[in-house]
Order: sequence, then C-alpha cells, then structure tokens
Amino acid sequence: MSEKLGKLKDLLAEVNDLHHAAAILEWDQQTYMPPGGAEARGQQLATLGKLAQVKFTSDEVGSLLSDLASELAGDTHSENAALVRVAQRDYDKAVRVPPEFVAERARVTTHAHEAWVEARKQSNFSIFRPHLEKVLDLVRQYISFFPVAEHAYDTLLDDYEPGMKTADVRRIFDDLRPQQVDLIRKISERKPPEDKVLHRKYDQAKLVEFAVQVATQFGYDWSRGRQDRAPHPFETTFSINDVRITTRFEPKAPINTLFNTLHESGHAMYEQGVKQEYERTHLMGGCSLALHESQSRMWENLVGRSMPFWEHFFPEFKRRFPSQVGDVGVKGFYKAVNKVQPSFIRVEADEATYNLHIMLRLELEIGMIEGTIKIVDLPEVWNAKMKEYLGIIPPNDAQGVLQDIHWSGGSIGYFSTYALGNLVSAQLWEKILKDIPDLAAQIRNGKFASLLSWLRTNLHLHGRRYEPQEMVERITGSRIDSAPYVRYLTAKYGEIYKL
Amino acid sequence: MSEKLGKLKDLLAEVNDLHHAAAILEWDQQTYMPPGGAEARGQQLATLGKLAQVKFTSDEVGSLLSDLASELAGDTHSENAALVRVAQRDYDKAVRVPPEFVAERARVTTHAHEAWVEARKQSNFSIFRPHLEKVLDLVRQYISFFPVAEHAYDTLLDDYEPGMKTADVRRIFDDLRPQQVDLIRKISERKPPEDKVLHRKYDQAKLVEFAVQVATQFGYDWSRGRQDRAPHPFETTFSINDVRITTRFEPKAPINTLFNTLHESGHAMYEQGVKQEYERTHLMGGCSLALHESQSRMWENLVGRSMPFWEHFFPEFKRRFPSQVGDVGVKGFYKAVNKVQPSFIRVEADEATYNLHIMLRLELEIGMIEGTIKIVDLPEVWNAKMKEYLGIIPPNDAQGVLQDIHWSGGSIGYFSTYALGNLVSAQLWEKILKDIPDLAAQIRNGKFASLLSWLRTNLHLHGRRYEPQEMVERITGSRIDSAPYVRYLTAKYGEIYKL
Repeated sequence: MSEKLGKLKDLLAEVNDLHHAAAILEWDQQTYMPPGGAEARGQQLATLGKLAQVKFTSDEVGSLLSDLASELAGDTHSENAALVRVAQRDYDKAVRVPPEFVAERARVTTHAHEAWVEARKQSNFSIFRPHLEKVLDLVRQYISFFPVAEHAYDTLLDDYEPGMKTADVRRIFDDLRPQQVDLIRKISERKPPEDKVLHRKYDQAKLVEFAVQVATQFGYDWSRGRQDRAPHPFETTFSINDVRITTRFEPKAPINTLFNTLHESGHAMYEQGVKQEYERTHLMGGCSLALHESQSRMWENLVGRSMPFWEHFFPEFKRRFPSQVGDVGVKGFYKAVNKVQPSFIRVEADEATYNLHIMLRLELEIGMIEGTIKIVDLPEVWNAKMKEYLGIIPPNDAQGVLQDIHWSGGSIGYFSTYALGNLVSAQLWEKILKDIPDLAAQIRNGKFASLLSWLRTNLHLHGRRYEPQEMVERITGSRIDSAPYVRYLTAKYGEIYKL
Repeated sequence: MSEKLGKLKDLLAEVNDLHHAAAILEWDQQTYMPPGGAEARGQQLATLGKLAQVKFTSDEVGSLLSDLASELAGDTHSENAALVRVAQRDYDKAVRVPPEFVAERARVTTHAHEAWVEARKQSNFSIFRPHLEKVLDLVRQYISFFPVAEHAYDTLLDDYEPGMKTADVRRIFDDLRPQQVDLIRKISERKPPEDKVLHRKYDQAKLVEFAVQVATQFGYDWSRGRQDRAPHPFETTFSINDVRITTRFEPKAPINTLFNTLHESGHAMYEQGVKQEYERTHLMGGCSLALHESQSRMWENLVGRSMPFWEHFFPEFKRRFPSQVGDVGVKGFYKAVNKVQPSFIRVEADEATYNLHIMLRLELEIGMIEGTIKIVDLPEVWNAKMKEYLGIIPPNDAQGVLQDIHWSGGSIGYFSTYALGNLVSAQLWEKILKDIPDLAAQIRNGKFASLLSWLRTNLHLHGRRYEPQEMVERITGSRIDSAPYVRYLTAKYGEIYKL
C-alpha cells in the first residue's frame, strides 16, 4: 500500500468515526434522550457534522485523491481503486456545495418541516406551499453547483442512486406502470380476502418479541446489533459490528409492527454483511438506497409475506396469539397479510399498489424541477394521478399531497429508490431461485442460512464497491429491470386472487 | 462582550460538544452497545478525544486566553473572568502533557487494567506488580511536566481538587483519624443491630422503581435526565438538560441497588442545577470531585439513611416489599441500614468506617510517590494499616490491596476526594440546618424542595466558577473541615448505639 493511500485511509477513518459518532447521537435522540436534551443535541450534531465536513473537504484529502487517481490509473478492479473512486465521488459532491448553502438549507428546511407538520395537521396545503417553493428554489440552486446533466433531475437522483439517470428510471417505470395498473384492475374485480384477523388487539411488545425471534432465525447477528423502540422505524450503523434497528409500535395496524421490524432487519443484515476490511472506509454501507431497499423488501415481502414462511411460522405465531388468530388457518392468514387494496397512504400500501404511489411522486418531482408543474397545482395533479393509477381520490390533502415528510426536508429525488428496491428484490430473487432451487422448502423448514449466505457473497460483502446498476448486472446479468417484479406479482396474486 | 471573548466561547463550545459526544458514546458503551461494537467504539472515542484535544490546545485558544487574561486583569469576580481562569487552568494542564505521553499512558494502563483483573481474580498481587510499577513511572513522569510543587503529590491532587494541597489533606485527615478510630472502637463494644432484613431476596427492578420514585421526590428532573441499568453505577452529563444515571443490580446486597441509585441521583441533581448560561462552557459541571461527592453522599446518607427519611418512606417501602420487611418496624429498619461493621471492601463500607479506607489509600499513594513505600511491600503495608484502623486483616489480596480499579488506570490522587466529599456533606449540612431549622420535619413529610433549592442557590448554580475550598468557604464561612462530620457521626451513632 502506498504511503499516500495509507494517509488517505487514516483521514477517511476519522471522517467515518465522526459520522458514526453522529449516528449514535441521532439514535439516542430517537430512542432514549429526555426531551430536555434536544437543544444541546442539535448543537452537538452540528459540531460533529461541521468537523466531518471540514476534515473531508480539506485540500489534503483533495490532493491525496487526485494523486492516487493518477497512481491507480490503470487499475479499475482493485478494492483500493474502488475506495479512491467512491471517496472521490463523495468528495466532489461535498466540495461543490458551499457551507453557507448547507447552513441556509438547514434553516429553510427546519421551517419547512414545521410548516409541513402544521399543514398536515390542518390538512391545508396552502400553509406548506410558500415553504415548498423556497425548498424548490434551494434544490434548483443545488443542481446549479454541478455540471449540467442530460436532465436536471439526474443530479438529484445521483445522490441516492449513483449513476442512475432520469431517463433510466422513466424507462423502467413506463414499462412497469401499465402492467401494474392492469393487475390491480383485475384484482379489484375479485372478492377480497377476509382480513379481520389483522385488526384485532395485539400486545405490541409480544409482536416485537416474535419479530425478533424471526429476525434471529433469518440470521440477524444480535451480538453485533440490537432492537429498540422509537417513534419511527429505522436502521442505523455505527460499525459493521454494531448495526441497530428500531421498531414503532403500531397498535392501530398491529401487523405493521411485525413487518416493519422484518423490513429494518433486512437493512441491518445488509450492513452486517459488508466485508470487515471496509470498516472505517468509504466502502462501508450499502451500494445505494435502491439496493438497500431491495434487501429490506426481500426479507419483509418475498420472504416474510410468502406462503412457505407462514407455513413455518404460523404455528408459533398462533401459540403466541391464540385469541387473535385461533379462528384462522395458515392459508387464510397468508391471504390476509397479502390483501390488495388501493389506499391513500404510501407507507400503508401493499406490494401490488406500492410502486404506483412512487411513480406518481416521481412524475410530480420531475414536473416541479422542469417547471411544468407549479407548486400551487400539486394537490390537484396529485389527486388526478391517484384517480388514474389507483382509482381513488384522497378526501383531503393530509391523505394526499401532504402525507410524506421528504419534500419538507429537501429530499427530492429519493422516492424512486423505494420502487427500484422492489424491482431489484424480485430480480435478485429469480437468480436466487436458480442458484437455490429448493429455497421454498428451506423456508418452509425455517432455514434461511443459504439465502443469507447467497446474499452475503453476491451483494452484502461488496459494500459500496460497485455502482448500483453495475452491481445488479454483476449478479443477475442485466441492469435494473421491472419484468421479474411483474412476473412475481402476477404469479403471487394470480394464485391468491385466482386471476 | 469583547470579540475575543465571543471567539473563545465559540471555540470552547465546540470542544465541549466533542466531550459531550464522547460521553454519549461511553454511556451507550456501558448500557446498550452490543459486544461486537467495542472495537469501533474505542476508535471513535479515540478520534473524538484527539480532535477535542487538538482543538482545545490550539495556538488560537492559547492566544485568546492570554489576551483575555490581560483584558480582564482587574476583574476577579465576573463570570467571564471565571470562565477565562478555569479554561486557562484546563489549557495549561492540557498543553503540558505531550500527545505521545497520552498515547503511551493509554497503552500502559490498558495492559495494567487487564493484569489487575487477572490478579484480582487469582488474588495474586505479583501479577499486577510489574504493571503498577510502570504506571507509577508514568505518574512520576506526568508530575515532571508541571512546575515543582511543595509536594510532588500536589500535582496529582490538583487534577481532582483544584487548589488542594497534600498538606491540607493530611492536616484534615490527621485531625479526623483518631476521632473516627475511637468512635468505631466504642461502637464495636456494643451489640450490633439486627440486619437480616437487608439480606433477603428483593426484586431488583422493583427496588429501582422505588429508588426512582424517591429521586423524583428529591427533585431529579426526569424531563432532563434518565436512569438505566449498567455494570457500574455512574452519573454522566451530556448537557445541563440531559443528565443521566445508571444503576447496577446487586442481588447479593440488594439495599445497595437502592442507595447507589440515590447516590448517583445526588450527583445528577448537582449537574442539573448548574446555571443554564454555563451550557457549552468550561464553567459547566461540578466544582471538584469532593464537592460532587458531597452531593451524592448527602442525598444517599444524610438524607437517605436518616430517621426522618425512613419515617416518611418506610410505609411505602413496606407496601412494595411486604414479605421482605413485614416483620420489622421503621426503627429496626433504620438501624439495619446504619449498621457499623469494619469490612474489607471500601465500596461496601458504612458511613462510620468509610473514611478510614480512604486514609489508608492516601498514605500508600503518598508513600509510593515519595518512594518511601515500595510497590512490592504494598500488600503488607495495606494489611498492617487495616489492622491499625479497622482492627481486621484481609484474608487475601483480592479483598485487600487489589480491590480498587483506580491505580490500574493511573488514577493516583483521586481517592481522598471520596472522604473529603463526606466531610463537606456534613459541613454544608450544619449550615443548611441553620438556614432551614425545620428540615427534619420537612423530610419526615416527604418535602425536599427547600433543601434542593438551598443547594441550587448556594452550590449547584455556580458550576465550576469557584475553586472548591473557596466555594466551601463562601457557603459555610470556613474551609474544608472535619469537625462537622465528626459531630454528625457522633450524634447519629451515639443515638443508635447508645454510646
């Protein structure tokens, strides 16, 4: 290892330490911090963020990166070359954005977030509108710091899905949309399964216990992780060997407490599976948000909402919740957790309708950036698209355009990664079934080791070494593609709804 | 406020943020961190420590401090002058100790700690001896970084008790020792109270619940604090508005679970009471370790082991633990929690014998630094002093010279603050009783507000503004003095043991 590479790694290790320290402070803020701690915590996080930024964007890091890029010019495959490439990508983004802009964005989004909370409470979009306009101005300004791309929205997408283009996402979604709309139309003509079993009262702590047992059987290594309760479910990483999840108690939709825990466990197992040598480097973590989501959705849905899964776990679930599920069989329960029903709220959407919520948002975001959709018109456009895709119109803005937190925080470009994650999960799944033909039987027997091992070897180990499209292609032979997901939905719901 | 003062405060605020971030990481390490997280956590803490040190010892801070010292030369009373003085004191210490020494000390004490654990396990001092010799060399080297003091041990003491001299501590202890030895001798001639009620099985979680209720009644503000379980009880501060304690479950000595929680609550209420304006400055926190200990011991002992306290709380305690304390009355319980019994282990010692454990250690430490006591002779000297002060000889080194963690970590000079804290608690108490003559009646009625308010106004608010001896003198009119503690012990045990 060259001296410069060693020096770079030392500097990046400290930057990583600062980011992980901040993650610990944020985790505590969401789990255990008493309310009085909030103000000081904000200042501590600001200080850690500033120091990490100063350290990372230093001229020293810049020179080391450019020297090493020359040094490793012929090398496109080694891990060191990948490290320099990924760090360079992050560095280029970090240095382009002036600190004053970061501070201004923090100020504007803090107010926008407060306004969004109030607007949603009152279901009154006009409270949020002027703030969203300011946020959009900032997002446009952000785009202006970067070289002109094929499409202005590319710059935003790239922050979440490195290398992904607006044209790619549009092509993928354009291909998917009519098929998914058609499937939902067919399903809506059938009699829905009975799901009253899901709307009974469950002891939340016992649901979490069950979810933790399932995650343990999946392979979540608790000697390198833990689960806590928080107002929002999330996964967070302090080290490859300290990867935690949180669970939100959802007494009104108890089954979500279970599935959200499996979802976050999927994220966590990805982070736990990254090569130990990547600890404290910029190769730690998942390849992209879509690939991360492919893992959470795979364990939540392709595994957790499958018939073999419930064939294994239902007796245990029934033993723990006799009064709630005593009157249903495994097949009835399986159908209940897979009931398709167009609904207003994205985070409550089922597998068949979820992506349509995303496509709607993507179109609105692109329209906002292009200027073809005015902020003032968002509620109307939202409702029209809901009608077109899902056949329903939100009764108010709280259940429509105001439902998501993302825009208030300036996160434009994020949403599509959720749908891409669904697609990738199915795409990987087809390959997995080729490599592990008896996987269904293994799951039916409560065995998940060969599945996790496959994911580790093919995906998790590599961390951020490859770009997401490259990663998917290395594993499956093709770039992100919607066909496997359509095949998956068609087969699954064809059987449940007898289409 | 001058521009320089503003600049200094900004810099110190960031240093404080880094220290508090480290405290959060350490708290998590002791409470919730999974074992896998240990290695990364060590690196993160090292990075935060290094950045805080670099930031604090920068030339910029140095120049600002010396400029401000001139600017404020005539001002000995303002808070700004105190801030500059305290920051200067910390700065002078920080810059004198070379980073290589800090690294070397970390290395040596890590090994010394491992050796101490093993030595204690095997009750074999010779395993620890060579490590303690290295630690002592480092401590001597540390002393050499500082101007020659009246006594070499002064330099060590000053780190824990600013301004305190070896001669002061010796004088205080020399005055105290014969009186305390005499008291214990008299007590040992009386029939000891029955304390089997303390050795029954208590549900540890329920003891903590009770302790938390008591601390709430004391005035511990849980909207700015919390309590968690950890392998060691401690108090930690992330902000004046986020002050936490931990409790160790002690099934073998259940009553300790209760009293240790009250003890840590005392520390926490001190930290919560510091003036809000001192947040993120070097005036945050307690005045010294002895003054801190005066607060923990006051709530634990002068309040928590008093008859009025149990007159109020015993009915509630009995309601919660009917099968354990159903057969004793409040007077019997009060006598049981105040039983005096010379014992080998400091942390299990009662109020009457505790200080003697400390005096023994002080003499050994001074002897080690002076070179008049050789490391190899420590076990023998220890046992001789135990015989002299407490009339008992430890059966082995694990229960003797190997019992404390402090020396393995290089903390020489720390112990006397425990005994000084006891003395200060009684000294303040005499003044409090003058100012609040009906305090006993208030406590008997479960009212602690005027006590806490007195402590806030006279001590807590001031944080680190005054040196400890100055602080005690401002409150009581005299410097640290053992007479009030002797009066307190004599009155209390005179009554219990009918001396």
